[in-house]
Amino acid sequence: MLIGKVVGTVVASRKEEKLEGVKLLVLKQVNVEGVVGAGYVVAVDAVGAGLDEYVLYASGSSARQTVVTDKRPVDAVVMAIIDQWEVGGEVKYRKVES
Amino acid sequence: MLIGKVVGTVVASRKEEKLEGVKLLVLKQVNVEGVVGAGYVVAVDAVGAGLDEYVLYASGSSARQTVVTDKRPVDAVVMAIIDQWEVGGEVKYRKVES
Amino acid sequence: MLIGKVVGTVVASRKEEKLEGVKLLVLKQVNVEGVVGAGYVVAVDAVGAGLDEYVLYASGSSARQTVVTDKRPVDAVVMAIIDQWEVGGEVKYRKVES
Amino acid sequence: MLIGKVVGTVVASRKEEKLEGVKLLVLKQVNVEGVVGAGYVVAVDAVGAGLDEYVLYASGSSARQTVVTDKRPVDAVVMAIIDQWEVGGEVKYRKVES
Amino acid sequence: MLIGKVVGTVVASRKEEKLEGVKLLVLKQVNVEGVVGAGYVVAVDAVGAGLDEYVLYASGSSARQTVVTDKRPVDAVVMAIIDQWEVGGEVKYRKVES
Repeated sequence: MLIGKVVGTVVASRKEEKLEGVKLLVLKQVNVEGVVGAGYVVAVDAVGAGLDEYVLYASGSSARQTVVTDKRPVDAVVMAIIDQWEVGGEVKYRKVES
Repeated sequence: MLIGKVVGTVVASRKEEKLEGVKLLVLKQVNVEGVVGAGYVVAVDAVGAGLDEYVLYASGSSARQTVVTDKRPVDAVVMAIIDQWEVGGEVKYRKVES
Repeated sequence: MLIGKVVGTVVASRKEEKLEGVKLLVLKQVNVEGVVGAGYVVAVDAVGAGLDEYVLYASGSSARQTVVTDKRPVDAVVMAIIDQWEVGGEVKYRKVES
Repeated sequence: MLIGKVVGTVVASRKEEKLEGVKLLVLKQVNVEGVVGAGYVVAVDAVGAGLDEYVLYASGSSARQTVVTDKRPVDAVVMAIIDQWEVGGEVKYRKVES
Repeated sequence: MLIGKVVGTVVASRKEEKLEGVKLLVLKQVNVEGVVGAGYVVAVDAVGAGLDEYVLYASGSSARQTVVTDKRPVDAVVMAIIDQWEVGGEVKYRKVES
């Protein structure tokens, strides 16, 4: 999995029938230090993630292993909202509860 | 998924039998700001996408999860036509109805 | 899928038993303008492609969805020989019949 | 597989239900000479790996072929703790028992 | 598939149970001209490859389609030992029998 930051959404009214009701998030890729990069991916939301949250996303066939994405033509899914990650004993990100 | 712009088509008369009747689109990769890049992919059209439209495509085994691509030797599929996407509250692309 | 040019072959007498009778082609990657690059892939031939032909190849699990490659340990397959592709209304490649 | 060094952990309380009880490790990618790079991946621990250990991780659908990860939406798994690797007859890494 | 040169081995005593008895090879990536690069992959040996041999390896789910790797958490397999490959009619590598 990789870390992403939810930065936006995609709206698509004309789509494969299996995609009805699926929420599409734009994620920017985040490096291990917490720096947001230019790379992105559009992923299906399986956990109710909101704008500006840091999340984990899975790619490939693994992206179809959630209730929301089962047997659907999607190759990326947000499967967890990150509370915190640390590297070398140092906290790189901690979610601020609103 | 990634964002692509439909820029062309591929014609191939000699092909694996399972590919009969499949429409092959040339997509240029688009970054999250809407800028069209040099990278490309050839994807099967599952939604009736037209030239110059911005679309979402899925790669890998997920590309076989549409009615059109089921069990076929294809690794990329256009599964949605984008109406709009936004990043940080700013609209990066909005489809103009013709 | 990506576009490749058939530039050579690989001979391997000692191989996994499921690979018996499979023809292995060396493809150079071709960009959307038709320029042959340095990148390559070794792919199984599922369509009888010949030297110097431009082809489409599929990667990953999709490479096993042909009669020739079913259940075999191969991750790339040539599944179509290209007649022509165009980008922005301009023909980038057209096969010359011999 | 690729070689990774365990450098941290990710905590995520809100996640897809199938992820309950799974331990998420942050791995930094290690090159063949043993040099730790900037690239990273978040992988599920299937072998009880600890901080600073060098491990092998598998990606994609293969990451779901362990008891811990079966049918779960994860695309990377630590499936072995490395004792030693060598290149060209030279030991590049040997685990120091504590 | 890609071409690799067998340059070493990995020893891992603590591993997922399905990996018992599997031989892990370190491969350096080789370009189409036969030049050995810095990139590497750790792959399971399915054909009895030895040090310094040039081999083909398959990645992803296709790596599980051999007798040795079936249903195991591995994402790369050596499935052929190369005798020879040629590009543009020129032999780039020919195995020297010992």
